[in-house]
Amino acid sequence: MEKPKLYILKIGGNVIDDPDKLDSFLKSFALVDEAKILVHGGGKIASTISKELGIVPNMLDGRRITDAETLKVVTMVYGGLINKNIVAKLQSQGCNAIGLTGTDANMLPAQKRPVKDIDYGFVGDIEEDKINPITLSLFLENGLCLVIAPLTHDGQGNMLNTNADTIASVLAVALSGNYDVSLIYCFEKAGVLKDVNDDSSLIETISALEYEVLKKDGIINEGMIPKLDNAFEALKKGVKSVQIIHADAIKEFNNHSKPRGTELYLTI
Amino acid sequence: MEKPKLYILKIGGNVIDDPDKLDSFLKSFALVDEAKILVHGGGKIASTISKELGIVPNMLDGRRITDAETLKVVTMVYGGLINKNIVAKLQSQGCNAIGLTGTDANMLPAQKRPVKDIDYGFVGDIEEDKINPITLSLFLENGLCLVIAPLTHDGQGNMLNTNADTIASVLAVALSGNYDVSLIYCFEKAGVLKDVNDDSSLIETISALEYEVLKKDGIINEGMIPKLDNAFEALKKGVKSVQIIHADAIKEFNNHSKPRGTELYLTI
Repeated sequence: MEKPKLYILKIGGNVIDDPDKLDSFLKSFALVDEAKILVHGGGKIASTISKELGIVPNMLDGRRITDAETLKVVTMVYGGLINKNIVAKLQSQGCNAIGLTGTDANMLPAQKRPVKDIDYGFVGDIEEDKINPITLSLFLENGLCLVIAPLTHDGQGNMLNTNADTIASVLAVALSGNYDVSLIYCFEKAGVLKDVNDDSSLIETISALEYEVLKKDGIINEGMIPKLDNAFEALKKGVKSVQIIHADAIKEFNNHSKPRGTELYLTI
Repeated sequence: MEKPKLYILKIGGNVIDDPDKLDSFLKSFALVDEAKILVHGGGKIASTISKELGIVPNMLDGRRITDAETLKVVTMVYGGLINKNIVAKLQSQGCNAIGLTGTDANMLPAQKRPVKDIDYGFVGDIEEDKINPITLSLFLENGLCLVIAPLTHDGQGNMLNTNADTIASVLAVALSGNYDVSLIYCFEKAGVLKDVNDDSSLIETISALEYEVLKKDGIINEGMIPKLDNAFEALKKGVKSVQIIHADAIKEFNNHSKPRGTELYLTI
């Protein structure tokens, strides 16, 4: 029996921080007429509000540490301000959105990242084997569009900050038993580029083997590697299709053609 | 056929602002083993954060106006910080909580309060006739405990600030077709008091007729009148039981006896 389709899209700060871009993205997203999940990142709003609240960013080796005060801010901004405004906008477009974190309905059980070299603070690593797709499927089957903020919890009463790219791929894997999942990372470039400054250098397809070569040859921009590692991992674990596209390319969904960008394959 | 039971509890600032009180309340609430909804108010945290962000409270005739900046703060604080921390705590007590606003799944359609004498700003009046209890019932039937922040939306993409007491009573009415609803307002007093400074002056039951007399005689504290008007309205519209209790009295739920407080009746 054919599984129903499910689109999981991830947007980051470049869309969230620009009200016009966000509106335009959400209008197109609302038109996607299959089961769908939108995972959003944080954007600059959390940093701006932290600054206004006088919270000094806690950085270690160039990495942001989620201390107790920062956790409060991301819980407010990601789980409240950004999430609920996206939901209100989707509702105004006739899309029956529901805004959640990984804590709600215990969707994404996590544990505080163990301290090795660095104590990242209140950062959650998702316990993938504990994800229960039943509640997620229940929502989707009843026509709800999930809008998910990058937050999880430790089961001990604490919220945790969690990477949105990871949430998108973990959800894609967890739901791939019940759905033909298309996982789509939307960002500010046309896809994976040979030259990060030249959108015309788009690599339209990358197989797992080609990815290893591209990495080895230093052609893949370093910032893209965690995203692509996540993406290939998702394919290996049963996700049907993974694409990396420009957020504007979501418009191409309207006529049911695949949006232009980079498509990843296990074998080509 | 007997309808299933549903408890709808409302807590306000006096519980939310005190971490120990909140913990203790949530532990008892988690033990209530019927379908249940927790509606929470705001508390002082929103005012504190507004102040820290340099937002000057916009007051008119002693009433707080929800301007655009204040709307952002309440969306963050009510919908994010308070709501998600309550959910994380309930999850840690084995209660499968899901945190929502009236915007999520379009649970509580509202309209911006029309300007008559005062422009209250982004304040939402719930459109009771448009509430669809199907999604709410779906969640409850699947064992989810709803935790609801006092926010709604106008269907045009805007969040709205909405009174938590009203949300509790409107939800109670909307669900009374499918459930035997007990609506319980938890606050800092033992119930409705003859003397607001004397907890031993508790009025244990008030009928609708007695309420009119108590109001006329000036015995009911003015601040209680909107709460009680809401409560009697809910009874008239089919809610089975309405109580006003001290937040601590929730502990008495454990042995299935009714908590002590004031019980309201249409006729006695």
